[in-house]
Amino acid sequence: MTGSRAPHTTRVGFAHERELAVRLYREGFAVVRAPASGARTRRLYYPDVTAIYRGRVIAFEVKVFSKPRDVYVEEYRYRRLADFASRAGGVALLAVKYVGTGVWRVVPLELGERTPSGYYRYPRRLVEGSKTLEEVLAEVKGST
Amino acid sequence: MTGSRAPHTTRVGFAHERELAVRLYREGFAVVRAPASGARTRRLYYPDVTAIYRGRVIAFEVKVFSKPRDVYVEEYRYRRLADFASRAGGVALLAVKYVGTGVWRVVPLELGERTPSGYYRYPRRLVEGSKTLEEVLAEVKGST
Repeated sequence: MTGSRAPHTTRVGFAHERELAVRLYREGFAVVRAPASGARTRRLYYPDVTAIYRGRVIAFEVKVFSKPRDVYVEEYRYRRLADFASRAGGVALLAVKYVGTGVWRVVPLELGERTPSGYYRYPRRLVEGSKTLEEVLAEVKGST
Repeated sequence: MTGSRAPHTTRVGFAHERELAVRLYREGFAVVRAPASGARTRRLYYPDVTAIYRGRVIAFEVKVFSKPRDVYVEEYRYRRLADFASRAGGVALLAVKYVGTGVWRVVPLELGERTPSGYYRYPRRLVEGSKTLEEVLAEVKGST
């Protein structure tokens, strides 16, 4: 959860990220959360949440906002997350929650549009039209 | 690296654990290290090092000692690591380094013998006769 480094972001995410991890665990996934923010800038990059179900790997970038808005991912994190997923043979996904909706939307990382300022942008409409976490988890678990 | 909680253990492991993680990364694995010790006692358990190579998952318990000796894993950690590997569809392995030998030995978690005091024991001879990290990584990468 690095929303604080993206433009116009509210940092409301830590408890929600934990809720996401617990939910994945209850769904039968092996789950690892990255250390809190300080450690995330160390040499080895970790996804916010890594979830594994019988060899199927999901690397999550987690974004939580108080209101619906466009979502930005720093180019550095975009590249590292894509690389992690590639090594793992898994998928890189953005998990977005607009607090109040109570719903996690899941957007494939590669749908981001690169901005001139070095971010990848996921428009609010894209996020709101994306699959829910439940839908994505059912797909992952069904495909094993 | 929780050697400090096992009997007669020397805590010399953190830098070595990091070296292990970097090595796995260089071998092409996606790698996640658990947060430093404090956080490891939280509700969600994480392996010391989780390494993934194209859908093949290794969950490592890392043990580093200044001298050759028997290795102990707490029953709690043994069970959580086995559960993690089962969820992930991967394997649970003990990575042991006796500093000075310069070699990581890799022992399947399930070879531990339960002791009356609630540990799983891996005799020094078992460790010294186990495969090296290089051998295990070659197997994992060759099998994909």
